[in-house]
Amino acid sequence: MEVKAAVAWSAGKPLSLETVHLESPKAGEVLVEIKATGICHTDAYTLSGADPEGLFPAILGHEGAGIVVEVGPDVKSLKPGDHVIPLYTPECRQCEYCLSMKTNLCQAIRGTQGKGLMPDGSSRFSKDGKMIHHYMGTSTFSNYTVLPEIAVAKIREDAPFEKVCYIGCGVTTGIGAVINTAKVEPGSRVVVFGLGGIGLNVIQGAKMVGSDMIVGVDINPQKREIAEKFGMTHFVNPAEIEGDLVAYLVDLTKGGADYSFECIGNVQVMRQALECCHKGWGVSVIIGVASAGQEISTRPFQLVTGRVWKGSAFGGARGRTDVPKIVDWYMEGKINIDDLITHVLPFEQINEGFDLMHRGESIRSVVMF
Amino acid sequence: MEVKAAVAWSAGKPLSLETVHLESPKAGEVLVEIKATGICHTDAYTLSGADPEGLFPAILGHEGAGIVVEVGPDVKSLKPGDHVIPLYTPECRQCEYCLSMKTNLCQAIRGTQGKGLMPDGSSRFSKDGKMIHHYMGTSTFSNYTVLPEIAVAKIREDAPFEKVCYIGCGVTTGIGAVINTAKVEPGSRVVVFGLGGIGLNVIQGAKMVGSDMIVGVDINPQKREIAEKFGMTHFVNPAEIEGDLVAYLVDLTKGGADYSFECIGNVQVMRQALECCHKGWGVSVIIGVASAGQEISTRPFQLVTGRVWKGSAFGGARGRTDVPKIVDWYMEGKINIDDLITHVLPFEQINEGFDLMHRGESIRSVVMF
Repeated sequence: MEVKAAVAWSAGKPLSLETVHLESPKAGEVLVEIKATGICHTDAYTLSGADPEGLFPAILGHEGAGIVVEVGPDVKSLKPGDHVIPLYTPECRQCEYCLSMKTNLCQAIRGTQGKGLMPDGSSRFSKDGKMIHHYMGTSTFSNYTVLPEIAVAKIREDAPFEKVCYIGCGVTTGIGAVINTAKVEPGSRVVVFGLGGIGLNVIQGAKMVGSDMIVGVDINPQKREIAEKFGMTHFVNPAEIEGDLVAYLVDLTKGGADYSFECIGNVQVMRQALECCHKGWGVSVIIGVASAGQEISTRPFQLVTGRVWKGSAFGGARGRTDVPKIVDWYMEGKINIDDLITHVLPFEQINEGFDLMHRGESIRSVVMF
Repeated sequence: MEVKAAVAWSAGKPLSLETVHLESPKAGEVLVEIKATGICHTDAYTLSGADPEGLFPAILGHEGAGIVVEVGPDVKSLKPGDHVIPLYTPECRQCEYCLSMKTNLCQAIRGTQGKGLMPDGSSRFSKDGKMIHHYMGTSTFSNYTVLPEIAVAKIREDAPFEKVCYIGCGVTTGIGAVINTAKVEPGSRVVVFGLGGIGLNVIQGAKMVGSDMIVGVDINPQKREIAEKFGMTHFVNPAEIEGDLVAYLVDLTKGGADYSFECIGNVQVMRQALECCHKGWGVSVIIGVASAGQEISTRPFQLVTGRVWKGSAFGGARGRTDVPKIVDWYMEGKINIDDLITHVLPFEQINEGFDLMHRGESIRSVVMF
C-alpha cells in the first residue's frame, strides 16, 4: 500500500513528507494505522547524526498510538480494530530476559531492530524500490506502519490517541523509573535533575506513590511553575546556589535523597545525582542518555557507604503488560498528560514540532494524521 | 588496670608491645578480655600511614573475640562471663540508620569512633599519662579493651575464640556481601575478583546459597586450590587470557555474571567487575577499599542497560543480630573458617603476623593472648 510518511533521508536535514510503499504484515506482524505520534528528543538525536547507531534513510518516530487494521499469519493477541500503542521495547514473554522477571529489556528481536529491520531481516518500507529503514521497531512518523506483534500494547478504546501516544515513551519512562526501577516508597525524599518531559513524569510518579519531598533541579527558572503543578515541593536552581550543589541538596533533604533521578544525559549531573543520595540507602537512577563515549565517575567510597547506582530504560516497564495500566491511570485521572502536551500539530507540520523542541518552547509536541 | 597491648606509636613502624593503662568502663561500656584477634589488611593500611583518617598513637585491631569481665553503669544486654565479638560497625537499634532497615551503617557513635575515642569523647587507654587512641572502636590488639555495649555481639560459649574472631571482620564481610548486600539466589552465576580472605569468604557464601557457577579471578595461580576447596567452580587468571578479560568472563558465564564482587580495592578491577555483569540484571558489589582519591568510571550505558553498581561494608551485617548467627553456622559446619586461618601466633609475635600477610604467605593470621 501507499502511505504518508516523514522520511529522514540523511542526517541533519529536515524530514521529507513523502508517499512511500508499505508491504503487508508478514507472519507475527500487524499493520497499524497511526493516529497520533509524539516527537521525542531521541528522534532529534538520531536525526542530528550524533547517534552512532543511526541509520538512513529511515522513518523515525517511536511514540505513537493507533488502530490495528490487518494482522499477518500466526498473530494471536491482536485483531483488526484493536487500539494500540507501539513498543520500542517489545515483550515477547518467552526469552531469557522476559522470563528472568528482573528486566524489561526483551531481546527477542534486538538484532534486527537495531539494524532498522523487521524480525525476518527485511524492511516493509520502500520508495521507488529503494529500501527505507524502520526506526526503533516502530516508525510512527507514518500514517501506517508494520510492527511485530510482540511490540504492540493493546489499550482501551476510549483513550484519546493524541494524549496516550505519549505513554509510548516519555510518560512510561518517567513514571516507570519511579515505580519499577527505583521502587520509591511513600514518605521518600526524591531529587529530580532536569525538568523536561521525563523529569516532570518522574515528579508525578513520585507524587503518585506518596513521596514526602520532591526536589526539582533545573537551571531554567521557568520550569518551576509546571513542576510545582505536577507535585514538586522544592525548586533548586544550581545557578542560584552558593557553594557546592551536592552539599546543598544533602542539607535540604536532611541527609540526602532516598532516590534521585538524572533526566538530562549529562555525566557531571549523573555524579551529582549519585552523591546527593543518602548514605546507607540512597538510590540514584540514570534515565538521561549521555553522548557517545562519555563516562561517569565517582569515588568507590560513595557506593561502599551504601549508595546504589542504577539506570532505567523505558521506565523498566514491560510494555504489553504495563502500558495498558498506565493508560488506565490516565483515564482515571491518576496521572496528568494533558498539561505536558503543549502543542498538537497536523502531520504536515512535523518539522515545526522539532523546531519547537529545539527552541525549548514545547514540553511535548504531538502530530496527528 | 594495667594491660598488655601492641601500640602503634607512629605510622610505618612495627607495633610496640607495652604495658598500658586501661580505665574502667564508663556508662554504657563493657570491659572485655580479648582472647584472640585476627590481623587484617585494614590494620596494615592504617599502620602504613596511607589511611588519611589514621590516628597515632593507637591500639589497632578490629577482629577479636573474648569474654566480658566487667560492665559499666546502664549496660543491660551484657554481663560478666558473656562470650563476645567486638563490632567496628555497631548496632544501636535506635538511630535513623538502624531503624531504616535498609543499612547496617549505624551512626550512633560514628563521630567519636572516627576520632579514636569512646562515645563520651575520651580514651580509656593511656601510657604514662599520655592518651592512646582507640581504633575502629575495638582496639583488639590488647588483652583487655573497653567497648560500647552497642559494639559488642554476644555469641555462644562453645565457639573457639581463635576461629570465630575472624567473624569479627573477614568472614562476615565476605559472606554478608553475598547474602545481605547482593542477595544472591540459588542457581546464580557469580564472579569473584581477588581470592584473598574476603574473596574466599564470598565464594563460600555463594556456595552456601546455592550458586550454580562461581568464577574466581586472580593473577596468582596458587590461589586456585584453596578457592576450589571453598566452592569455586572456574578459575580465571587474567594473565593467561588472550584479549579482553570482560568479554572472556561474559562468554564464560553465558551472558555475564548475575553477581560480581570486587575484593581487591583496585578501581580498574571494579570497572571490570561491573562490566562483566549480565545485561538487564547483573549486580556488582564493591567490597575492596581503594586508595584515597581514586575513582571508578564506566559508561552510563552500562547502568541504563540494567547493571547495578553497589558497595558493601561489613557485609551489610547488623553485628549484634547477624554475627551470632554466623558463629552458629560455623559451629554447625555450614561454613569453613579453619582452613582460612593459616597461622596462629602468640601475641608476642604479632609483628610476624603482619610480615606473613605482607609476604602473601597467610590467608589469615590470628594472635592469641
